[in-house]
Amino acid sequence: MRKIVDLNCDMGEGFGHWVLSDAPDEALMELISSANIAAGFHAGDPNSMDRVIKLANHYGVGLGAHPGYRDLQGFGRRFIQTSPEELVNDIIYQVGAVREFGRRHGIRLQHVKPHGALYMEAARNEELSRLMIESLSAISGDLIVYCMGVSKTYEVAKRLGHPVVREFYADRDYGADGAIVFARKVGRPDPEALAQKCVRACVEGRVTTVDGDDIEIEFESICFHSDTPGAVEIGQAIRRELTSNGITIAPSSSVLEAT
Amino acid sequence: MRKIVDLNCDMGEGFGHWVLSDAPDEALMELISSANIAAGFHAGDPNSMDRVIKLANHYGVGLGAHPGYRDLQGFGRRFIQTSPEELVNDIIYQVGAVREFGRRHGIRLQHVKPHGALYMEAARNEELSRLMIESLSAISGDLIVYCMGVSKTYEVAKRLGHPVVREFYADRDYGADGAIVFARKVGRPDPEALAQKCVRACVEGRVTTVDGDDIEIEFESICFHSDTPGAVEIGQAIRRELTSNGITIAPSSSVLEAT
Amino acid sequence: MRKIVDLNCDMGEGFGHWVLSDAPDEALMELISSANIAAGFHAGDPNSMDRVIKLANHYGVGLGAHPGYRDLQGFGRRFIQTSPEELVNDIIYQVGAVREFGRRHGIRLQHVKPHGALYMEAARNEELSRLMIESLSAISGDLIVYCMGVSKTYEVAKRLGHPVVREFYADRDYGADGAIVFARKVGRPDPEALAQKCVRACVEGRVTTVDGDDIEIEFESICFHSDTPGAVEIGQAIRRELTSNGITIAPSSSVLEAT
Amino acid sequence: MRKIVDLNCDMGEGFGHWVLSDAPDEALMELISSANIAAGFHAGDPNSMDRVIKLANHYGVGLGAHPGYRDLQGFGRRFIQTSPEELVNDIIYQVGAVREFGRRHGIRLQHVKPHGALYMEAARNEELSRLMIESLSAISGDLIVYCMGVSKTYEVAKRLGHPVVREFYADRDYGADGAIVFARKVGRPDPEALAQKCVRACVEGRVTTVDGDDIEIEFESICFHSDTPGAVEIGQAIRRELTSNGITIAPSSSVLEAT
Repeated sequence: MRKIVDLNCDMGEGFGHWVLSDAPDEALMELISSANIAAGFHAGDPNSMDRVIKLANHYGVGLGAHPGYRDLQGFGRRFIQTSPEELVNDIIYQVGAVREFGRRHGIRLQHVKPHGALYMEAARNEELSRLMIESLSAISGDLIVYCMGVSKTYEVAKRLGHPVVREFYADRDYGADGAIVFARKVGRPDPEALAQKCVRACVEGRVTTVDGDDIEIEFESICFHSDTPGAVEIGQAIRRELTSNGITIAPSSSVLEAT
Repeated sequence: MRKIVDLNCDMGEGFGHWVLSDAPDEALMELISSANIAAGFHAGDPNSMDRVIKLANHYGVGLGAHPGYRDLQGFGRRFIQTSPEELVNDIIYQVGAVREFGRRHGIRLQHVKPHGALYMEAARNEELSRLMIESLSAISGDLIVYCMGVSKTYEVAKRLGHPVVREFYADRDYGADGAIVFARKVGRPDPEALAQKCVRACVEGRVTTVDGDDIEIEFESICFHSDTPGAVEIGQAIRRELTSNGITIAPSSSVLEAT
Repeated sequence: MRKIVDLNCDMGEGFGHWVLSDAPDEALMELISSANIAAGFHAGDPNSMDRVIKLANHYGVGLGAHPGYRDLQGFGRRFIQTSPEELVNDIIYQVGAVREFGRRHGIRLQHVKPHGALYMEAARNEELSRLMIESLSAISGDLIVYCMGVSKTYEVAKRLGHPVVREFYADRDYGADGAIVFARKVGRPDPEALAQKCVRACVEGRVTTVDGDDIEIEFESICFHSDTPGAVEIGQAIRRELTSNGITIAPSSSVLEAT
Repeated sequence: MRKIVDLNCDMGEGFGHWVLSDAPDEALMELISSANIAAGFHAGDPNSMDRVIKLANHYGVGLGAHPGYRDLQGFGRRFIQTSPEELVNDIIYQVGAVREFGRRHGIRLQHVKPHGALYMEAARNEELSRLMIESLSAISGDLIVYCMGVSKTYEVAKRLGHPVVREFYADRDYGADGAIVFARKVGRPDPEALAQKCVRACVEGRVTTVDGDDIEIEFESICFHSDTPGAVEIGQAIRRELTSNGITIAPSSSVLEAT
């Protein structure tokens, strides 16, 4: 049974005058323990980054870079076929931008979590995962990489001894192979059901797939999305149920230390 | 008389498949002592940044971020009316991206030089200069700011005690007030004439204006542009003439230490 | 007294996954007589344009192009200093894109209304207004230009005999000179108050300025903004009050014919 | 034997201050019979479009839109996974922009040729080809589509009775299946060899593949690329050799009429 877990959320995913969801940043920040900051390629701009990273510092939330494909129109959810070298350069660029705002607000960079289609591509592309982790490792050996448990990213990080955190997706469905079923649009889920799903995953280490079967699942962080309708209520329900079941919510750096 | 001077050039100012000039990066890198790296908003992309910053490290060139307005089409040469807060966020974002590639290649960030219209706007906008320097100061007290001698940027940096370097423009014309005459297009100048202009500026501290008068000029760095036709020949002539006149070319951090 | 008036609204001002307001496009389309379609530079993308222009055809709404500065981050509300030639090229590009979707959905282009800072710049820049109107005139002599009554755009269009429509802004404040007071952010106004302001402007030809004085105002179209909070309620109130006061709402092409 | 053929080239493939090749637009325009105008997504901006389309009119060259993926950094040579509906919206947007500048300069739109990875994707994706051709057909029944002879695009156009032109690639290599071998970078080829390859393809209807075998090839237009080193010399050699072998070079609309 998992007694300590990270709770992460993508933050700052608007652009210019646009915002992504009805969830106020502050309301989410006080619920989570780690934030993945959109870094300008799929969403986010220097103003949103400055604002949200300042908030992350205020609420003691672990700071993460959330690099994506260079695709504002597609919100980084469209696969772009290119070389691992180019993608890792894109990642380093975005990581640096997030880290600098962290520096401004006195909060050090805790982790990197690729966004959307880049996250999924890394999960299946061993060469991309390897180059990404080797490059991040060369820059900062303690920069935690977030990924799916069933992924090349996890395998490579483990093999290279780089700190890695597996995610459990509160608001995504699982397939029989333990991978999430990628969905472009998500309806409004029941917060209590998602919270129970999280508690069960922590206590029993199990989740029900889209086919109705149970599979085993291992993770160090729970993720929910700020653009899932009702995100604040989802975060509140998860936090309440985890806490009342004796599970501590803490940034992934603390979770890894405790493990 | 100036015995040591920095020689800087804007580098990596292409985008994707496009390059800006006929000057190969390597040929320029071996001539200069500091490089201003285009950081993605007016030019430059993660691939060019990675490549050019690796080169800067190889040639022992001082690393600088060259942030510009978010305007690829206008190459950052069009003024955009917005708040100092937004512009400083743009600068921090781009500085962080450059710094991270420096980290990857083992070269620390030496300086920041705003590009084009942003450089000119900072020169006349005291509030922008102040917020930029205060913000950079809070992040890294030793991050040298490049500017014109006649500028609000210089005044503010001096007042705040932040390290600052004034530029002499080898390939730009001067007005009677000691400010450069902003030109969108530049013809092919005579490298020897530009080199003599630089030597005279170092030895006599004087330059001839567009009106034919002589003015006094103070500076710690000489700048020429990679998109000025014949950039390599210009850099070679300047380096040769400075050296043969007993003037040492060194990164601005060394120049400031020696002063 | 004005017996027939156009009611226009900016439409499709999201980008990719982002939308601008809580007002559904369909709810607005059934209220207005002309739509200004964001064309990709400050907002709007090919998918939003296709969807919204199809709707415009369905509801019999006059089709307008709404070109802006190339500035997604600033939503076209930041002035960019550049030549009239470049700006008119930007306008023609965006006009063509809107016209082509109109062609696809069987609706011809009725008008062009520059957006935000470009609209304001044209209002004060006679050279820009002249080049814009001459260029549109050369392309389509019947393409109506929307502008403020107090503007170079109106003066030039009248002088050149190009069809022009002056706007009355339901949800913007007026200065003593009859120009609107440009605001980046707008609070939630009272729909009934705005509707009464419109009726009075039609019946009496007068509006109260921010200083509390009355000025005379002439116009052929009433504008309200889809990103003003409560846009649907505002549109409903305006439509109801105009209609109950015997004022016909019709596309600007019909308004000009009737005048 | 083919007695009349179109000679087309991609034009205006710079962006802002950047150009793609050392080939002056005017030098190419006087050699070709049809031009594919970059329309802003992979290259090209309103200023380049205005300038190049004016040139096309001056030289009596057939005007074509050259829409690409929205990917300036990748120059439209990176596949982006998205729906045919989105891609066709992107195409219509770009077609409209080109058509409008054509309208300004008194030259009607002759054809549409997708660029780079979008061209290759349409070649293998029947659904995309079908939706593109149906949509273009609904807009303008006489808008010629350019494609490879071995492609879904050609099959669909023929089946739907939409005007279509197959291309022969002077500066690309052929595989055994008659499809071109997609290359990101191209060296400097021998203009005379390319010209002979074109003449042979016209006279004998055959081309040698990368494997050294001969295959039959059918086409109505010959394409060479402005970014192939030595593009002007290539165009001159092709034009001279075709003409001296009694083959007329004419816009594709004339070629289709003559066939």
